[in-house]
Amino acid sequence: MTSADYTVGDYLLDRLAELRVTEVFGVPGDFNLEFLDYIVAHPTLRWVGNANELNAGYAADGYGRLRGMSAVVTTFGVGELSAANAIAGSYAEHVPVVHIVGAPSKDAQAGHRVVHHSLGDGDFGHFLRAAREFTCSQADLTPATATREIDRVLLDVHEQKLPGYLLLATDVARFPAEPPTTPLIPRTDGSSPRALSLFVEAAEQLIDDKQVTVLADLLVHRLGVVEELDALLKTGNAPYATLMWGKSLLDESLPNYLGIYAGAASEEHVRRAVEDAPALVMAGVQFTDMVSGFFSQNIDEQRTITVGVHESRVAGKVYAPLDMRDALEALTTILARRDTPAPELPDEITPVAATVDDVDGPLSQDVLWDKLSDALTPGNVVLADQGTSFYGLAAHRLPHGVTFIGQPLWASIGYTLPAALGAGVAQPDRRTVLIIGDGAAQLTVQELGSFDREELNPVIVVVNNSGYTIERAIHGEKSYYNDIVEWDWQKIPAAFGIDSAQVFRATTPAELDGAIAAAAADQSRMTLIEAVVPTMDMPPLLTELAQSAAKANADPE
Amino acid sequence: MTSADYTVGDYLLDRLAELRVTEVFGVPGDFNLEFLDYIVAHPTLRWVGNANELNAGYAADGYGRLRGMSAVVTTFGVGELSAANAIAGSYAEHVPVVHIVGAPSKDAQAGHRVVHHSLGDGDFGHFLRAAREFTCSQADLTPATATREIDRVLLDVHEQKLPGYLLLATDVARFPAEPPTTPLIPRTDGSSPRALSLFVEAAEQLIDDKQVTVLADLLVHRLGVVEELDALLKTGNAPYATLMWGKSLLDESLPNYLGIYAGAASEEHVRRAVEDAPALVMAGVQFTDMVSGFFSQNIDEQRTITVGVHESRVAGKVYAPLDMRDALEALTTILARRDTPAPELPDEITPVAATVDDVDGPLSQDVLWDKLSDALTPGNVVLADQGTSFYGLAAHRLPHGVTFIGQPLWASIGYTLPAALGAGVAQPDRRTVLIIGDGAAQLTVQELGSFDREELNPVIVVVNNSGYTIERAIHGEKSYYNDIVEWDWQKIPAAFGIDSAQVFRATTPAELDGAIAAAAADQSRMTLIEAVVPTMDMPPLLTELAQSAAKANADPE
Repeated sequence: MTSADYTVGDYLLDRLAELRVTEVFGVPGDFNLEFLDYIVAHPTLRWVGNANELNAGYAADGYGRLRGMSAVVTTFGVGELSAANAIAGSYAEHVPVVHIVGAPSKDAQAGHRVVHHSLGDGDFGHFLRAAREFTCSQADLTPATATREIDRVLLDVHEQKLPGYLLLATDVARFPAEPPTTPLIPRTDGSSPRALSLFVEAAEQLIDDKQVTVLADLLVHRLGVVEELDALLKTGNAPYATLMWGKSLLDESLPNYLGIYAGAASEEHVRRAVEDAPALVMAGVQFTDMVSGFFSQNIDEQRTITVGVHESRVAGKVYAPLDMRDALEALTTILARRDTPAPELPDEITPVAATVDDVDGPLSQDVLWDKLSDALTPGNVVLADQGTSFYGLAAHRLPHGVTFIGQPLWASIGYTLPAALGAGVAQPDRRTVLIIGDGAAQLTVQELGSFDREELNPVIVVVNNSGYTIERAIHGEKSYYNDIVEWDWQKIPAAFGIDSAQVFRATTPAELDGAIAAAAADQSRMTLIEAVVPTMDMPPLLTELAQSAAKANADPE
Repeated sequence: MTSADYTVGDYLLDRLAELRVTEVFGVPGDFNLEFLDYIVAHPTLRWVGNANELNAGYAADGYGRLRGMSAVVTTFGVGELSAANAIAGSYAEHVPVVHIVGAPSKDAQAGHRVVHHSLGDGDFGHFLRAAREFTCSQADLTPATATREIDRVLLDVHEQKLPGYLLLATDVARFPAEPPTTPLIPRTDGSSPRALSLFVEAAEQLIDDKQVTVLADLLVHRLGVVEELDALLKTGNAPYATLMWGKSLLDESLPNYLGIYAGAASEEHVRRAVEDAPALVMAGVQFTDMVSGFFSQNIDEQRTITVGVHESRVAGKVYAPLDMRDALEALTTILARRDTPAPELPDEITPVAATVDDVDGPLSQDVLWDKLSDALTPGNVVLADQGTSFYGLAAHRLPHGVTFIGQPLWASIGYTLPAALGAGVAQPDRRTVLIIGDGAAQLTVQELGSFDREELNPVIVVVNNSGYTIERAIHGEKSYYNDIVEWDWQKIPAAFGIDSAQVFRATTPAELDGAIAAAAADQSRMTLIEAVVPTMDMPPLLTELAQSAAKANADPE
């Protein structure tokens, strides 16, 4: 490409490439087609088309969780609104996704023309205004300001770990531009030395010679400070737990790992270790209804150091501006200075694997989750949809090196199927394992064919319990609105053109063992396992949470 | 139900029933489950569950087009945003749909709790604010104002023929209420007698003894004044045309029917009959890019009476407030008072059916559209997706009594598949015929199973041309972003549990004939016909429009 041909579109793509994006998801539409040409022509970017825009948004979210930045392209109105649920989900779950929307030319807009994909009222600002509600930064690019607006939005997305929105009219995309001459330097608020020193003083006093327990969650991962937290744990020889939201953030195979903290819904030894800790460090924790046993956490602020994104608290007192990284490093330094007390680990009740009395009897959920979690190997990326799958797997310890992806706050069923595609594209050398209910899979199933095109060979477990079991658990156990149309999952891969898939139906523990063994034996193709379990069988954790959810919907307090 | 149990939810349902809604579409979620109980318990309403929320919104749109009112229920955040594209489409295409969104309890909202399906920032107003951009009326229902707010929004939807939005928290839905005691009286702006009389005077002068030609479109249908327009046509013995948007609005089998007017893209005899008419009545017409040959209409305002929703114009002068119904009736009265001149019908070039030289040769699009339009019978509801299907069928005359549904302004591909479900549920005695491209069908395919559950027996023609042909026509003919994953359509119905479907693959005219005959012979089950045509074969009208679209995207004027 000669610099004479260089366009605003190219500039945007170069900036994405600088942020280490190598694949762009989306669906073509006539207002973005020429921009897609630039992607195809870009030396380091590749276009990954999706079956629809919601799926494209979910795929970008899955990719962004593993890569720390992602991009999705849709077309004006129809495409962008179809992706809105995915983009808002990225906001709720703190995933950096750049949503690029191809728009009618600025001329058509200025003339208020009644063009397709618009509402016909001549107002082309409707959808950008809607996007303001669930993106952290937006720009309607113009020739005069495009490059600096692109930089602003990308930096916001990168810094805040939230989605951003770029409206790119056809004529702006092709407008001549200069390539970037300076790197896109991530801004950092930075910590105030005074805040840091006061924080250290207070933290030293609180910690003293007490055993430190750590409760960590999602934001530690999103901010990229897992290594700093690991150093703190190691230095302090500290017992630790995570919430379900941050599951797999920390090594779950070490003795110091306590388990999942979920307020009153925690296993008792975890609850006590966290709530009764002499000194508790909470890092990147946000309590949401479904990960806290409906806000049943019982944390004594006076014994707690809370490390947040840009501020920390010691016994309730705020120290800011103070970046999470600096706070964690300071705590590690404090712990290094003293003799580390031996951790008093609670008597963990080693979870007893469900007894399989009859390997040819009906498959149950407890057996299913035991066997699936046992089958995971280091390197796997496992996605569990927000239903029985998430709660079934969240309670199990995972091998070190397994990444767990769920969506407990946004909780959009069907999310994980396209997100698994995104995760696979992000890290093709790791095998993706997707666990999803039959009801959830119906929402987004058309993305299955894309795995094949991308030469990904995931293991997909469809938990067939004949409908929306998580909803039945909350309300309407036998109501027909919780039924779904029954599909023939054995035929689904071939219908979607995936002739190479191996497909199993497991109705007994023995059949499940066989299917898992076959999946492990042949990693060169997709394995789909339909695991048939009773309709109202569910993980104990979900039963408890569903009762709380029903109560929350029912009781005016 | 005793009146003691009567709730806000019941009140809303009674009002919907009063507007002759008998089915409610949607997807369950824990914030709407109890409201679904009220639907199940309602004496005249029935719940029709969908595979996902976008499809539910599309189905409600299809239903609303035939019934004049429809309702869709989703859950907060995740569900409502997934439906946003469908709701905005109903806005662009003037379809009255009530979107009811189940929300967290008012208590949870007031406490700004971080509950699932929210963004986690304690702000529960994000999605209502987003919905303001593409609904005509919204309410966040509260116990104190729920019933009057429900009435307000339903009346707005009914009157404006645009979608509305109701946010219904769990605790508000179950709040005690009084049943309605007075009927929901649709408001009417009404016409000013003075405006009407001035309009009549001006219209009489313009019409004089000239031959009147009528160009009608969509809004005549949406406002329910088709009969009044028919009376005008009959009284005036007037030649008439519609735009593609209003196709099938008027009887296409009579000699006075000219054809489709599409600006410069019209057939020449239609273009001249409309543009050279001595007196032209335009009723309910809105020119959009794709139905006007990219704004190439050439209408002399001085010879034109334009009848709009609440105002009319004679030779450019505005008369208002003046309802469309009153204006049409006044014009009929004017025409009745004079001797009706014999219409000078243009020499219509009778379209020659494509010559089928070789019934066993490859199937082409021209043969496909000839054969499919010939096969339609009175009573059919035919939906043509916004690609080759729409433009292929729009150019053909349809038998009287066929309803044609397309979406040329919003133009969201995949729309027609779930909309066909909605149309079938709305009028189960009419056979639904769906014509959709393979790329488009991938967006919404999971709704197929619902036809079977609803005992509908549509004819579904999947035009398999290996990708997004409409996009290829505009830009990127051979670019891989316009390719799609190739599915095995022969296996799709069985995979979705529709064992009773008859499935055909037609690669030649003879095979298509056989499939059409089989569909006609057995109306008791779904017939799916995969019609295989060359990738870049397309209707002439689309070729022309695609070139204009590419030009509009390319040229800064």
